[in-house]
Amino acid sequence: MMPNPVNADEVGRSARSSVMNFLNEIAQHFPDAISFASGRPAERFFRPEDWAPAEAQFYADYAKANGLSAHSARHRLAQYGATAGIVREEIAMQLRIDYRVPSSAERLVVTVGCQEAMALCILALCDKPNSALLVRNPTYIGATGVADAARIRLAAVEPAADETLDDALARRIDELAREGISPGAFYLIPDFDNPTGEVIDRENRERILDRCARHRIVVLEDNPYGMFRFEGESVPSMSELDRYGCVIHLGTFSKTLFPSVRVGSATFPESLFGDAKAAIALRDDIVERKSFLTVNTSQHCQALVGGLLRHYGGSLAGHVQEPTRFYRENRDAAVRALTYGLQGYEDRVSWNRPDGGFFLSVRLPFEFDDDALHLCATRHSVLVMPMRYFTIDDSRRDTVRIAFSNLDPERIEEGLLRFCDFAVDRMRSVSA
Amino acid sequence: MMPNPVNADEVGRSARSSVMNFLNEIAQHFPDAISFASGRPAERFFRPEDWAPAEAQFYADYAKANGLSAHSARHRLAQYGATAGIVREEIAMQLRIDYRVPSSAERLVVTVGCQEAMALCILALCDKPNSALLVRNPTYIGATGVADAARIRLAAVEPAADETLDDALARRIDELAREGISPGAFYLIPDFDNPTGEVIDRENRERILDRCARHRIVVLEDNPYGMFRFEGESVPSMSELDRYGCVIHLGTFSKTLFPSVRVGSATFPESLFGDAKAAIALRDDIVERKSFLTVNTSQHCQALVGGLLRHYGGSLAGHVQEPTRFYRENRDAAVRALTYGLQGYEDRVSWNRPDGGFFLSVRLPFEFDDDALHLCATRHSVLVMPMRYFTIDDSRRDTVRIAFSNLDPERIEEGLLRFCDFAVDRMRSVSA
Repeated sequence: MMPNPVNADEVGRSARSSVMNFLNEIAQHFPDAISFASGRPAERFFRPEDWAPAEAQFYADYAKANGLSAHSARHRLAQYGATAGIVREEIAMQLRIDYRVPSSAERLVVTVGCQEAMALCILALCDKPNSALLVRNPTYIGATGVADAARIRLAAVEPAADETLDDALARRIDELAREGISPGAFYLIPDFDNPTGEVIDRENRERILDRCARHRIVVLEDNPYGMFRFEGESVPSMSELDRYGCVIHLGTFSKTLFPSVRVGSATFPESLFGDAKAAIALRDDIVERKSFLTVNTSQHCQALVGGLLRHYGGSLAGHVQEPTRFYRENRDAAVRALTYGLQGYEDRVSWNRPDGGFFLSVRLPFEFDDDALHLCATRHSVLVMPMRYFTIDDSRRDTVRIAFSNLDPERIEEGLLRFCDFAVDRMRSVSA
Repeated sequence: MMPNPVNADEVGRSARSSVMNFLNEIAQHFPDAISFASGRPAERFFRPEDWAPAEAQFYADYAKANGLSAHSARHRLAQYGATAGIVREEIAMQLRIDYRVPSSAERLVVTVGCQEAMALCILALCDKPNSALLVRNPTYIGATGVADAARIRLAAVEPAADETLDDALARRIDELAREGISPGAFYLIPDFDNPTGEVIDRENRERILDRCARHRIVVLEDNPYGMFRFEGESVPSMSELDRYGCVIHLGTFSKTLFPSVRVGSATFPESLFGDAKAAIALRDDIVERKSFLTVNTSQHCQALVGGLLRHYGGSLAGHVQEPTRFYRENRDAAVRALTYGLQGYEDRVSWNRPDGGFFLSVRLPFEFDDDALHLCATRHSVLVMPMRYFTIDDSRRDTVRIAFSNLDPERIEEGLLRFCDFAVDRMRSVSA
């Protein structure tokens, strides 16, 4: 179905597209393995008992605001609805309070999860034959998958040893310009990146904004994990720092509420690179594209999100306190297990200790290939995610991603100690 | 955002893309006009009282089948889920019973409304540079909009006066072949077409299938209105008639249940042009593409559809009886009003009397342009839809679409008598 490889960067596509199959297969074959492969939110913090009352409240409020009976309100909202969504006020308020994103109903489009927002923005912004999507390498496969399916060129922004992220961006933009390629967007998860767990510091955020504004590249700021900070000072979001009108904020409720609600958002700048009309035209283009993908986001789901946001007082800060504490304990358990299990190998294996989010990464002194993966699953009954699956050039073969969000601390310790056993075995056999 | 027109057929894009804006604007400016513009289902037949019990039953059944507590079932289903969907069995059964579509869980993918199914299939099947999407002209803008956004060439299949639809298809395929163009799919609403209300007869269906199979063109059979037949014998669906494995059936619950649930489906043939592996590869390609557009269809919405299908005994035949009666009365009121209001002009104005569905069309002896539309709205307080908005070449300027689904018979008579007043005025002034 993809007969025309566009450029060398596309070499990674088959690896990327095999991730889903791989995950499903392994999970099927080793259902009892402790899996660090999937970055799902912890289910225990979902609160289904809140859902029916929240929905009912939303319908009651809607009825009152529109002079309808509760029954009529449900009828009306069961119809087709505005493509841009009906809970834009509620979501924009939550984005302002919880993320300090300068959102408003006019600037926001409600989408079928963040993935639709991402897809719509990438398709609209990288629409020209000489376009490209800039991504970090490795990066979230949801972004590279959109580009692959639409045959949009991917260009990796990957700092060399002596480079900052912004240095690498500058270099990449220059390289592409020499090929006549003009990137339309730069996809980023600045806070607790998936897959690396890294945070972009404020200085780099500002320099990236300066540079993107100069080259008229839109920053797609995806922020699924920003509310899950364990310690340290939060860095202002790129949307908040944006003085140029070059950031689109991509929002999701999959981690703060629950994934199956499939509600996300895109918030557009008030003026796109200083042009207010261009910002509106871009939003309208996205809305039109959405009308041809999903018509509108289910109002059944929007009512639930709108109701829950009201129910929790407009902000989800309180709602995420308990899961954040849990994820922190999980991070601690993961780091503890790695520290203990890899004693004596600290000079050969390294890992990060993220200040938040769902992921950390471990760099090994050997290639973690499919055989290693298989061995981990069969002999040690543990699953981790090879980092190469998140790259666009099949690199990072020595690194794995550890998702610590959907296990409890005991299982994390147990699983990572087993993983350490595997790593130590391998290091010994290589040394031997 | 669309700088590279691909071919002459694209001339209609701006007209097509303006439909949404036009509709919204007119509806905003003339909220009291009687509107025949929108083909929404009648809200009075939505049964919100069934929803909570149906959902609860679904969760209870799911819990039992998976050995979980009801609470755990809700937690589990609030997670990310299978991209292909969790109510495939239920939907496949309903398609078998109600449409005699040979569907099965393995062959079906649950989508965010029919629009996503349509978009995914068009994008996958018309993916090559020399591809094209065949459509009737006029046709539903949901299909042409997908092609426009992805810059897929559109090719109209439009019978000349002495041609059948299949003749026109044969001619068009030949014309395209001479240009080196190979159509990937033919989008059709064989039953009570939107916008024309027409039904393709059995002979033409079979001939179209023969021809599409010969040229390896997949038929995308969209069937939103098939269950709303007022009289006469139903024609077997193209999926049922398909002996070649060349039909994908696109399903929706927007008209049979309610639109805001945003659940639809695609059913793939067991073997694609005789190749079972190719059919699975196509389904898998669609599932992968879906994972990068919407991840999965909200399980909150799927639980509701699954629950309702069980609640109504697996079939929606009973559930649509009352609305079908209502739509028939509406069709009758529309035809009555046109017959009465256009007495003496039968030789100059014509309309069809569809045996089902939501639409009929009226052909006038003058051009129904934006001025006419405006005059109808301002002076006669009635809104109809110019057929040119559904064409890909801005043709059919003398025809309007009348949607009779979401008004009651009294309003239909009143509105169409006003429309007749307008038409008679115009005919008189032209004659004078």
